[in-house]
Amino acid sequence: MAVDRSSKRMAPGVTLPRYAVIMAGGQGTRFWPRSRGRVPKQLLRISGRHTLLQATVRRLVPLCSWRHILVVCSAEHADEVRRQLPRVPVEHVLVEPIGRNTAPCIALAAEWIAERVGDAVMIVAPADHVIRDEEMLRQTLRVAAELATAHDSLVTLGIEPSRAETGYGYIEVGQRIDRRHSGSFWVKRFHEKPSLRLAHRYVAGGQHLWNSGIFVWKASVVRAAMQRYLPDVSTALAGVWSAARGERQRLRRAYGALPSVSVDIAVMQPVTAARRSPMRVAVVRARFDWNDVGSWGAMPEIWGCDAEGNAAVGTIVPVETTGAVVYSPDRLVALVGVKDMIVVDSPDALLICARDRAQDVRQVSEILKRRGLVRYL
Amino acid sequence: MAVDRSSKRMAPGVTLPRYAVIMAGGQGTRFWPRSRGRVPKQLLRISGRHTLLQATVRRLVPLCSWRHILVVCSAEHADEVRRQLPRVPVEHVLVEPIGRNTAPCIALAAEWIAERVGDAVMIVAPADHVIRDEEMLRQTLRVAAELATAHDSLVTLGIEPSRAETGYGYIEVGQRIDRRHSGSFWVKRFHEKPSLRLAHRYVAGGQHLWNSGIFVWKASVVRAAMQRYLPDVSTALAGVWSAARGERQRLRRAYGALPSVSVDIAVMQPVTAARRSPMRVAVVRARFDWNDVGSWGAMPEIWGCDAEGNAAVGTIVPVETTGAVVYSPDRLVALVGVKDMIVVDSPDALLICARDRAQDVRQVSEILKRRGLVRYL
Repeated sequence: MAVDRSSKRMAPGVTLPRYAVIMAGGQGTRFWPRSRGRVPKQLLRISGRHTLLQATVRRLVPLCSWRHILVVCSAEHADEVRRQLPRVPVEHVLVEPIGRNTAPCIALAAEWIAERVGDAVMIVAPADHVIRDEEMLRQTLRVAAELATAHDSLVTLGIEPSRAETGYGYIEVGQRIDRRHSGSFWVKRFHEKPSLRLAHRYVAGGQHLWNSGIFVWKASVVRAAMQRYLPDVSTALAGVWSAARGERQRLRRAYGALPSVSVDIAVMQPVTAARRSPMRVAVVRARFDWNDVGSWGAMPEIWGCDAEGNAAVGTIVPVETTGAVVYSPDRLVALVGVKDMIVVDSPDALLICARDRAQDVRQVSEILKRRGLVRYL
Repeated sequence: MAVDRSSKRMAPGVTLPRYAVIMAGGQGTRFWPRSRGRVPKQLLRISGRHTLLQATVRRLVPLCSWRHILVVCSAEHADEVRRQLPRVPVEHVLVEPIGRNTAPCIALAAEWIAERVGDAVMIVAPADHVIRDEEMLRQTLRVAAELATAHDSLVTLGIEPSRAETGYGYIEVGQRIDRRHSGSFWVKRFHEKPSLRLAHRYVAGGQHLWNSGIFVWKASVVRAAMQRYLPDVSTALAGVWSAARGERQRLRRAYGALPSVSVDIAVMQPVTAARRSPMRVAVVRARFDWNDVGSWGAMPEIWGCDAEGNAAVGTIVPVETTGAVVYSPDRLVALVGVKDMIVVDSPDALLICARDRAQDVRQVSEILKRRGLVRYL
């Protein structure tokens, strides 16, 4: 098993190298019309001077250097990813033939590390989060990395919830681990997106954290977990990175059969639920600001608002308008008698969306496909 | 008095020439961002292949030929008006130094006719109306022209109201004039914009018509009416078109002192109210479709709607959207969960406006002025 093999390779006590694995496979249909098939959200400059991908990498470089960054993305975005990250070694951009959610993506990176490095601490992070308090993030990740090695555990970062959000999964914390790792707990249970009533109870109770989707573990440990709980995937991907040529063909063959499943559901939840298991799931309570930029509705938190709750990138002229979210860097937008509306400008298409319908922007892409207006996708 | 002078000039029974006077002085701030200070509504292609001004002229040419078209506009628009109407003699574009509402505009044209033609039947029409049933319009105008000569009356066209509109003035019809002129009545009273309750009563009663702002009269008759009820204006404008040079200076001097007043309030209403008066006010009931294009809210009537009541120029993708009014000829507009919203696209600015606030688009221009964003005006 991977665990044994790697431990054979490393003398005990030798600290493992750290690798950051950036999951950049998203399509970002909820950010139409700014994000298109060819340019998904994580490749866009949505706030600040860096794209979300660039900002994510820069946050992690101090923990593991440019030479230990891995980016997993889909074939159609590989060139743009390399263009945005010239300091990341070309062969560190791992290209998925097709997107298959987070479990295969993580397995792919774990296999690469096993093949090319032996073992390492993997810091796994989505490419499309906005985190301002970078030092706090890195501090939390250092604690998580220590836990991951000290206890061979699968560590996730849990965000102190700031509101009763129904769009996130929640982590119920269990027993505290030890004094050395403050804010660290064994995970009692994972909860899927809750009802509003339940979300309020979670926030009030103080025993639940948002599931950030940021993970830390040893490659060997996550591979072992996959072999146990997701054997199809580990078997399919075993050896895809072997030195032998024809890697691309091997990848395409392997991915054809892979299930599209998240690491939370396929690995974290069963490991947590398991009575006896060689590995356990831990959570580190994170206190940094965190925004998963799930949709345009999340932007006011990032951009800030005026007194009427209007948030904008670009010049706006609001007249008796409240709660507007406007992204229009190039053209002036005047709003008259508008309430809680999202307005997104782009060179060839425009979006007007009720704020409480931000998730449904996906539907637009589907309709465009059906109507054959593919140039807008 | 003008009446006498003209009747001296013309042998009785000789039919007068017909002149169409197009009032093109509007600024159209309610049509921002498509209409700007430099390009007001009437100079825009809002529906069909002609601008509102071009369409207005073309509707009237069959009644009085290109050589009998007069257009009154402000100095800043004169060049564009001449560009849009190459077949109108250059000297037939009468330039107002400043806009002073309809009374001075009409007086100016009447003086021109008195000076250059002697007398004529004036068909006065705003440049920014949309009328599809052109033949019916001309038929109505022929009846009005006959009335204007037969009775030396000031004739207005009254539109059969199709709804309880509170944005228009109403004309209360009185006694029917005679058999020869079907649908012709002496005017009992003019009513300003009514309350909704009153508007409903007007429509139900069948004795009230919309005041179209389209008038027919002899130049000599309207000049006589102005001399009696608006002496300052007639005195100020007397002789501005005299053959002597320095016409522009005379105009500027004259306009400096002119009141900004509408012909309805300054002439039609007092003439109607007057006990004894050499001239009377008549109305011809018009049955053609008529839209004064007062604001973007009026466009669905002109463009037509889909089943959800969405009206658009350009490609739209509505998702659970109703009552949207979209003008975006160049870019696709997707709407998600939007209700009764006006969306107007333009190269450098964008308007999002609640439909029941269409009148308040004016405020945007004021704010732009205050904020020094004049390039958007």
